[in-house]
Amino acid sequence: MDVRALVFDVFGTVVDWYGGVARDVRRLLPGVDADAFAAAWRRRYEPSMDRVRRGERAWAVLDTLHRESLDALLDELGQDADEVTRAELVLAWHRLDPWPDSVAGLTELRERFVVASLSNANVSLLVDMAKRARLPWDAVLSAELFGHYKPDAEVYDGAARLLGLAPEQVLMVAAHVDDLAAARRRGLRTAYVYRPDEAGPRGAPPATDPEADLNVASLKDLAARLVVG
Amino acid sequence: MDVRALVFDVFGTVVDWYGGVARDVRRLLPGVDADAFAAAWRRRYEPSMDRVRRGERAWAVLDTLHRESLDALLDELGQDADEVTRAELVLAWHRLDPWPDSVAGLTELRERFVVASLSNANVSLLVDMAKRARLPWDAVLSAELFGHYKPDAEVYDGAARLLGLAPEQVLMVAAHVDDLAAARRRGLRTAYVYRPDEAGPRGAPPATDPEADLNVASLKDLAARLVVG
Repeated sequence: MDVRALVFDVFGTVVDWYGGVARDVRRLLPGVDADAFAAAWRRRYEPSMDRVRRGERAWAVLDTLHRESLDALLDELGQDADEVTRAELVLAWHRLDPWPDSVAGLTELRERFVVASLSNANVSLLVDMAKRARLPWDAVLSAELFGHYKPDAEVYDGAARLLGLAPEQVLMVAAHVDDLAAARRRGLRTAYVYRPDEAGPRGAPPATDPEADLNVASLKDLAARLVVG
Repeated sequence: MDVRALVFDVFGTVVDWYGGVARDVRRLLPGVDADAFAAAWRRRYEPSMDRVRRGERAWAVLDTLHRESLDALLDELGQDADEVTRAELVLAWHRLDPWPDSVAGLTELRERFVVASLSNANVSLLVDMAKRARLPWDAVLSAELFGHYKPDAEVYDGAARLLGLAPEQVLMVAAHVDDLAAARRRGLRTAYVYRPDEAGPRGAPPATDPEADLNVASLKDLAARLVVG
């Protein structure tokens, strides 16, 4: 492999969305089952992007989709929440904690490769998250830059183009096999990270992705494979 | 001022384009007057972007414009250079040195603000430069993301939008008064950095910009004004 840049899915791959969202739900909506709420909110994530992907609505950033999903979920549950609380809940996604290996792994990988996010999150969310968590991105790449959500081809093509690289010089790193499958269809190399806890207790991601170029258990593991190797 | 993010012009403001380009011309084109060559190359910079700005040609990234300007300049001078040399010369713009105060100033400013590039350079140029020079950007913002070159309004508007901020929450920092004037027209705050050497011995930038919100002599000076103040 002649890989020059690594691009990372973020929610679940680099940071713990489930734990972070549940933590803020617990704080901001006392009495609500925070774990169930986090999972239910996330279940609205793909459908909300699908409407954009299918062209049924104009481009909207993820903060907007998160807010709409939140409002619908609160409605469904008959749960009151004022404007300030709703805005704060949306910002929970800006202040997710990295997995314990993420910062150390990215820091090692950055010595040898360009490391960039490639997330469906909007740029400002990713910037807020990176500052808080000290994620050492060389570049913050986002679906927002392309007006398309993963797994639309434009996102993977656009990342390689902005980095000035051929697709096969870019390695997509993700804890989600569908993201990696889409990246491969655009010619990127792929690495699967097994994150058993990424979707909470009910989640059960596959232990490996047989189609991926690499299978690793953490970003430290990825660095050990790519930087030392 | 309720400023949350600082966006920086790069060539001349954060890095020494003149010294860096002349250094590589000296190495790659022995016998050529490197200082005059650097200045002549740069004189083709604004005209090359003007053709894009006026819609006379489709969007092309700065690496492409630099290469076209280089080819034209070599032709004009009757100077031979092979393909490898030309490609290396274009990459001179990727490996410019920061001014002595840049990294320290940005590092201090980053503790309190989002700091991002906002340059006419393409993303890959800015990423290469930041890695080599250790510029601690929170985000690499570029004209390339908007398909418009500064001082087109789309660049300043787009930067505020991607950062999730109102224009007046963004401070544009530049050593060029025209860049700052355009930023102000879009509602951004502005800081002028006096860089007497940015265009080489023939350059004579004004000592201050009376229209700017702040006038400083370095990025350390800017940090002293904004972070301590």
